[in-house]
Amino acid sequence: MGSDSCPATEVEGAIDAVSQYNVRVLLAGPEDLLRAELEKRSLGSLPIEILHASEVITMDDSASSALRNKRDASIRVAARAVREGRAQGLVSAGNTGACMAIAKTVLGLVPGVKRPALAQVFPTLDQTWSVLMDVGANVDCTPEMLAQFALMGEIYSKIICHCSAPRVGILSIGEEEHKGNELTKLTTPLLKELPINFIGNVEGQDLYSGAADVIVCDGFIGNVALKVSEGLVAAIRQILKESLEKTLQRKIGYVLAKNAFEDFRKRVDYTEYGGAPLLGLKGICLICHGRSNSNAIKNAIRVAAELSQQKISDRIETAMHEGFGQLPPAAD
Amino acid sequence: MGSDSCPATEVEGAIDAVSQYNVRVLLAGPEDLLRAELEKRSLGSLPIEILHASEVITMDDSASSALRNKRDASIRVAARAVREGRAQGLVSAGNTGACMAIAKTVLGLVPGVKRPALAQVFPTLDQTWSVLMDVGANVDCTPEMLAQFALMGEIYSKIICHCSAPRVGILSIGEEEHKGNELTKLTTPLLKELPINFIGNVEGQDLYSGAADVIVCDGFIGNVALKVSEGLVAAIRQILKESLEKTLQRKIGYVLAKNAFEDFRKRVDYTEYGGAPLLGLKGICLICHGRSNSNAIKNAIRVAAELSQQKISDRIETAMHEGFGQLPPAAD
Repeated sequence: MGSDSCPATEVEGAIDAVSQYNVRVLLAGPEDLLRAELEKRSLGSLPIEILHASEVITMDDSASSALRNKRDASIRVAARAVREGRAQGLVSAGNTGACMAIAKTVLGLVPGVKRPALAQVFPTLDQTWSVLMDVGANVDCTPEMLAQFALMGEIYSKIICHCSAPRVGILSIGEEEHKGNELTKLTTPLLKELPINFIGNVEGQDLYSGAADVIVCDGFIGNVALKVSEGLVAAIRQILKESLEKTLQRKIGYVLAKNAFEDFRKRVDYTEYGGAPLLGLKGICLICHGRSNSNAIKNAIRVAAELSQQKISDRIETAMHEGFGQLPPAAD
Repeated sequence: MGSDSCPATEVEGAIDAVSQYNVRVLLAGPEDLLRAELEKRSLGSLPIEILHASEVITMDDSASSALRNKRDASIRVAARAVREGRAQGLVSAGNTGACMAIAKTVLGLVPGVKRPALAQVFPTLDQTWSVLMDVGANVDCTPEMLAQFALMGEIYSKIICHCSAPRVGILSIGEEEHKGNELTKLTTPLLKELPINFIGNVEGQDLYSGAADVIVCDGFIGNVALKVSEGLVAAIRQILKESLEKTLQRKIGYVLAKNAFEDFRKRVDYTEYGGAPLLGLKGICLICHGRSNSNAIKNAIRVAAELSQQKISDRIETAMHEGFGQLPPAAD
């Protein structure tokens, strides 16, 4: 019940997902609304069930009030289904803050994880992906949190990008180890100790260069990087559009080259890549953009299924034990 | 002597600047090299002089070693000319760290300024500019430093964007005041007290949206935001290029729409906007990208002249006194 055009987008994405992949989908939300939406579209019987939820969290609800006051909200009902084993993962295009708070509270953390972190993939010039994390779950991170993000991001990269030894970098403002802020300088020694392929500092442009498979940073900086990218893509599309409409010749050129622009759109449009997983929870949680279309929802469902099949939470637990086994249990 | 293709680029930019604007240029560097370059190009007598400097700082020199060991480096000779009043401003496309360190040491800070800050303009969707600062002069900033950046950025915006009451925002991860990290939350009350048009939190996409004229942030985050933007522009150009070359039809479309791409390139190419000023010094210092072309150098010279004519350093001193008059003198 979260996207800008809910529940039509979610229902359509769910129908596409069950048609194309070997998955079952539970739709959480007001039963009458969802039933009506399903009946508009689906022709036969599909592996889709409705989980009734009487409340809906809006974009105006704060995370804390949503958590406290809307105990029958669709996100919470969905999270409960994951906790109870009725579902393996949760996908939402709703209020990101509320979704993170509810998923964390209802599902709980993987033993050893201090904080869950949001991972976002970026398309790179060498036709692969880089994973940036955290992109907004935690501001004011500690070095240990960043080291945990590195371990979690590495596992996510292995599953999603089929990369056997992901190169892990730390986002900084120069390649040399001495360049950075207090946080990066304190984190680097921890990253060197972990059983990962740590390549040192990377810079902002490396989100797109392909120089690293996983890039770790504080959630404040990651969120800024993500939103700068979204803003720039929107600005570039607008500037190109205006420029291509200026003369008849350019318009004809645009028509001839239209498919190239479609390729371009797909490659830089974040809705094509499904959602961003909140890693470190006992259960899968994927958070999609509020502007998601049904394709994004479908892809997020596919990714959620894959993360579950690949047992990402178990693998994170093992990695935490191996990487941080000597530390006392996480307190939050 | 700093750009990737120095000194040809600098000499060409200087010749273009003196031809188009009412400025004189001093070229700092090895006299024989500069003289040869000038003789290749200039036909008559131009208001260009050479300031001989026997040393050159490379990209491999650290800022501290350049400062300590290369006392006759071209940047230092240029900075001395500014301090001595032989020039009003310094433009360099060289090693940014070394240039900042030398300019700060040789020129000194405007009374009241705690730290100089690097300001970068970004093109916005409403056909104007936003100024982001700091983009890399200071990592690990204090709230007071960010408040000073706001005052300095506001004056720069007034001069460059001819904006009478620039809207000043603080870069954060949500519009609401309670969203942000410790630094933004501590800075906001200071910004509210200043005699500026403070509009509260803005987000990453607002570098391009036109929602603010000046955006302040820690230099680490600003540098990441700038480099993410540069990396994404490069990636998008590459993706579009590959995509437009795939079929004959697309190639023809590209040829017809070529001018649109040229417009686009100009609008998103940072070299079109000259350099980034290091604000807060007793004298003008503009730092250009190492990849600068002669157009960028020419524009940087134009901007340096304008900042000098508009007495930016005096105006910053007055603003510091009005905004922070109650504080003890700056210590660093």
